[in-house]
Amino acid sequence: MRKLTNNELGRLDIPSFRSAPKNRVTVILDNVRSLNNIGSIFRSCDAFRIEKLVLTGISTPPPHRDIHKSALGAEFSVDWEYHSQTTEAVLSLKEQGYHILAVEQTVGSIPLNHLSKSPYILHPDSPPIAVILGHEIHGVSQEVVNLCDAAVEIPQQGTKHSLNVAVSAGIVLWELIRKSPIC
Amino acid sequence: MRKLTNNELGRLDIPSFRSAPKNRVTVILDNVRSLNNIGSIFRSCDAFRIEKLVLTGISTPPPHRDIHKSALGAEFSVDWEYHSQTTEAVLSLKEQGYHILAVEQTVGSIPLNHLSKSPYILHPDSPPIAVILGHEIHGVSQEVVNLCDAAVEIPQQGTKHSLNVAVSAGIVLWELIRKSPIC
Repeated sequence: MRKLTNNELGRLDIPSFRSAPKNRVTVILDNVRSLNNIGSIFRSCDAFRIEKLVLTGISTPPPHRDIHKSALGAEFSVDWEYHSQTTEAVLSLKEQGYHILAVEQTVGSIPLNHLSKSPYILHPDSPPIAVILGHEIHGVSQEVVNLCDAAVEIPQQGTKHSLNVAVSAGIVLWELIRKSPIC
Repeated sequence: MRKLTNNELGRLDIPSFRSAPKNRVTVILDNVRSLNNIGSIFRSCDAFRIEKLVLTGISTPPPHRDIHKSALGAEFSVDWEYHSQTTEAVLSLKEQGYHILAVEQTVGSIPLNHLSKSPYILHPDSPPIAVILGHEIHGVSQEVVNLCDAAVEIPQQGTKHSLNVAVSAGIVLWELIRKSPIC
């Protein structure tokens, strides 16, 4: 099995990416601290053609050298915006008709492997989805969770309380788009 | 939706984890450079009850302060071993009857969303699976890919050539175990 060269991967250039169809998913980072995590999430949003990344609170927006080190330029392809208040960003997306999903372990959270049987799926007839990921230690704040339509939880059977936030983002985005026609 | 407290998550302690049933998946890191990535992958292997993490080549094994910073102790729960030569580790698992999968973009690689229709699934009647992830820039070496039964590729539709390696590991592990009875 010969490895493909970078040229053979046929990736888009930035203008083509910006005009290409996107998956109807927006990612919100609620006070994510690590620039390395923010950069990795930009890279995942690029790979999965996510329509927008919304940075809020202490989540540092580009340009920043340490974001660039892990985003590797995906901060130039992916559409993004910054809001100081996470709640404002969420309420604005709610008004636009988005389904709002916290990635969080709550009473009644939907296990990720049941998400495809929930109303929160990507389908041409369904509302677009906003996925919120939170702070490395504190997660999505309770105040923000209270604004969400549902919480989705990645089933975890180990000793630690959670996965790395960039890994969680990648897994939840993959689960949402794995049946997408863009895939 | 009230957030669960850490106590309510009911996570295992380390002795209970070590004696608990595992998913029949081994992860091999072929010359992964970043200690932050190695630590995150330990954390994902803990969350998904992976049986073993095999570090090879320049992939630094624990104990290391920078692995601990991102593994947060998962390096004490997850079983691991170190081999200087990746090929030796792969050949040993082949001899033990493992299916060996490179996470790599190759001629004929299986798109991850088709993996569940391939022979490389977790099933009581199927062989266990070893998943190989490679260096942050160079990926899995061609020499190692040549020893694999198949390559699996995460479909990516953006501008960058690849996802972060810890994010890729999390996504591929999730796809393998999302229907696992341990989930």
